[in-house]
Amino acid sequence: MHIIFQDTQYVDVVAGEVLYHKDIEIKDGKIAAIAGAHTLKGAEIIDGRDLLLVPGFVNAHTHLGMSYFRNYADDMDLNTWLTKAIWPLEAHLTRDDIYWASMLSMAEGILSGTTTFCDMYYHMDMVAQAAVAIGMRGLLTRGLTDSDGQGDEKLEEVRMLYINSHGLGDDLVEVAPAPHAIYTCSGDYIKDIIRLTGELDGVLHTHLSESKKEMEDAEALYGTTPIRYMWNLGLDQVRTIAAHCVHMTEEEMDLVDPEKFFPVHNPSSNLKLASGIAPVQKMMDKGLTVALGTDGDSSNNNQNMLEEMHLAGLLAKGVSYDPEALKAEDVLRMATINGAKALGRDFEIGSIEVGKLADISCFNLNSPSFTPRNNLISALCYSAQAEDVKHVLIGGKFVLKDRKLIRVDLDDIREEVERKFQQLIDRKELSDAINGDL
Amino acid sequence: MHIIFQDTQYVDVVAGEVLYHKDIEIKDGKIAAIAGAHTLKGAEIIDGRDLLLVPGFVNAHTHLGMSYFRNYADDMDLNTWLTKAIWPLEAHLTRDDIYWASMLSMAEGILSGTTTFCDMYYHMDMVAQAAVAIGMRGLLTRGLTDSDGQGDEKLEEVRMLYINSHGLGDDLVEVAPAPHAIYTCSGDYIKDIIRLTGELDGVLHTHLSESKKEMEDAEALYGTTPIRYMWNLGLDQVRTIAAHCVHMTEEEMDLVDPEKFFPVHNPSSNLKLASGIAPVQKMMDKGLTVALGTDGDSSNNNQNMLEEMHLAGLLAKGVSYDPEALKAEDVLRMATINGAKALGRDFEIGSIEVGKLADISCFNLNSPSFTPRNNLISALCYSAQAEDVKHVLIGGKFVLKDRKLIRVDLDDIREEVERKFQQLIDRKELSDAINGDL
Repeated sequence: MHIIFQDTQYVDVVAGEVLYHKDIEIKDGKIAAIAGAHTLKGAEIIDGRDLLLVPGFVNAHTHLGMSYFRNYADDMDLNTWLTKAIWPLEAHLTRDDIYWASMLSMAEGILSGTTTFCDMYYHMDMVAQAAVAIGMRGLLTRGLTDSDGQGDEKLEEVRMLYINSHGLGDDLVEVAPAPHAIYTCSGDYIKDIIRLTGELDGVLHTHLSESKKEMEDAEALYGTTPIRYMWNLGLDQVRTIAAHCVHMTEEEMDLVDPEKFFPVHNPSSNLKLASGIAPVQKMMDKGLTVALGTDGDSSNNNQNMLEEMHLAGLLAKGVSYDPEALKAEDVLRMATINGAKALGRDFEIGSIEVGKLADISCFNLNSPSFTPRNNLISALCYSAQAEDVKHVLIGGKFVLKDRKLIRVDLDDIREEVERKFQQLIDRKELSDAINGDL
Repeated sequence: MHIIFQDTQYVDVVAGEVLYHKDIEIKDGKIAAIAGAHTLKGAEIIDGRDLLLVPGFVNAHTHLGMSYFRNYADDMDLNTWLTKAIWPLEAHLTRDDIYWASMLSMAEGILSGTTTFCDMYYHMDMVAQAAVAIGMRGLLTRGLTDSDGQGDEKLEEVRMLYINSHGLGDDLVEVAPAPHAIYTCSGDYIKDIIRLTGELDGVLHTHLSESKKEMEDAEALYGTTPIRYMWNLGLDQVRTIAAHCVHMTEEEMDLVDPEKFFPVHNPSSNLKLASGIAPVQKMMDKGLTVALGTDGDSSNNNQNMLEEMHLAGLLAKGVSYDPEALKAEDVLRMATINGAKALGRDFEIGSIEVGKLADISCFNLNSPSFTPRNNLISALCYSAQAEDVKHVLIGGKFVLKDRKLIRVDLDDIREEVERKFQQLIDRKELSDAINGDL
């Protein structure tokens, strides 16, 4: 596909500014040229005057397969939620279930401007298939635990996943290991995972310092904080995408290497599960690159990065009593280039620059959220709605055009998810009945 | 109009539950009957199987006319924001400007499920005209200050507004006075306003206990808290819609009459301006009815009550470390029946009950936010998007149908707002130049 967005505006997220009256040429999947309005020729022309081109959002921490559990069990404490609601159902999920739930989450992501995700779940080969089908970029990380005694089998699964899925779909899909958390993995297992990470691409995804309980347990069991504990196990050897980091201490912010350790802020989930509020401005002041993520639908309850941006921007101000904390351009960087850095892909995604892949969300400026057309970066951070996302390109190909998904049918996905969820409930009830009879 | 939503589901916000397989009949502007599916006949039938009927949201505190200042001056401290950005422009607003800005805010409200607003601004007769034109219900309150020496003229303006606009549009419009705040009104003026409130409908709208500075100043000037101070001026005599109440003390929660004093939670604005976080759960535990509002576009920056609901629900949990704080059904009540109570109109709006006015938002259940169809009240609170609002009825008339505004043209409104804003900027620059020349 060879197109030119003519006389458009786009956000330079690195500089934190909007550039107006530009032609942007997309060719061979990449951003081929950026020049003054009406200067580029020789391709299909798209009128860009009423569009704002933004680097596709990078959702740096989610669980795509959990969309069945959206609005299923809310307003509960974490323990009840996991043991009574989520785990009993998760135990009955099939490979197909995960394909369709992930597809729904990806569709939601695209419909709200996301082009890349970092997922942690299981049956990840099915997630890879879904990503290729819908045309979305993702880092697929198999959540790993060894409390069931099957840790080694799962490591072997990661190796096979890497062999079979890494690079799929013209490099849409990448693969990495994901120790679930320090409270679900033994220390030796975490060491094994770090070793495997080194053998593969050197990037690892985990939950870290999420709740007060995790902090207290780490202190009781290991006499230190979760991040320090992971450090002692060798986490410093790999690039880490560290979801949550709600309770990260200043001493830990000094400890970690900002080129290798990337906290992911998940404000909705952290509030909803009453985990607390991550010290994002402090992390940034300490030189860390903080990314942004939605977490799974069961604790959010959607995959809309715009809502996370709004929330991140507002929350930092409210809790610090500083209206200048976490400015709109910082929030936009978190959702784009910072996420790309966390995933180790900032050389090719995360900003609109010549030579990078054309992963671009086109916002419709003819919407109330952008009226009047004042500071468009503020608009993205504070007023924009998913509905304003008009087109989305990934690798130079339209995956959303005029708000319609191009490669899949949203109604088919929704209906399949409804059907699969009903079957899941039926299987669980049958299983409960059989177990009750025993 | 006489219609029946056939075989639909609706939320009983008072009971906090969803009722399924119902026919809902709308006749003469009211909810005429609710019965089992396929039992009502004799009217135009709308297939309700994939709709969720929800009482239209009551946005209990906003400044509709401020939509020009959306994304105009963000990430600033309150003083700089007011004195350098907002006030210099506000000084040049015309009556027509306020008509169009208010119209845009109302359109945004309807597009996200709001049917009633409580507005505080000026040139309120123009807001009344806009409300009648778009078909929206509102309490119009003239913001009052006497620091310019023109307090009495403004009281007279309220009287005239009441005579000319109260009851307009088949009772769409109501009118009330609004002392802006204790720091912009003298004590005597507040007494005058309370007296006038008694002469009119007995309801008053104000900003109260919003910022730490307001608390400190009240202590320094009056030796008490803002609410105590207002009490001493006679606020106990009237029904009060009290925006913000971020710093309301427990002693004040005990002091006020829950039948007459209604705090309005404005979470986006309070976070964005770094005012703090209102103790909503505590207020409710003390028996207060708390409403919900967006505040104006300059401190939000949109009029989407769904975002306020998401935020209210999440925030209460995060700051209290209690995942069971402020449940989804509480949040939905805040956005509907509680707002109706605050405005003194719960006898006719705020819930879907036979005999009440048909102010109803119809959500499209065929959307990702509602897939799978688990707890639909959770969906409204945590995952729903403005885009899911398919139809909106106010007083039994469609104001939005298939996501299209019926009585006004959104593109016309947007274009007029863009044009008016440019003229406003031009007037201000001309004025600055002339003043610079003097």
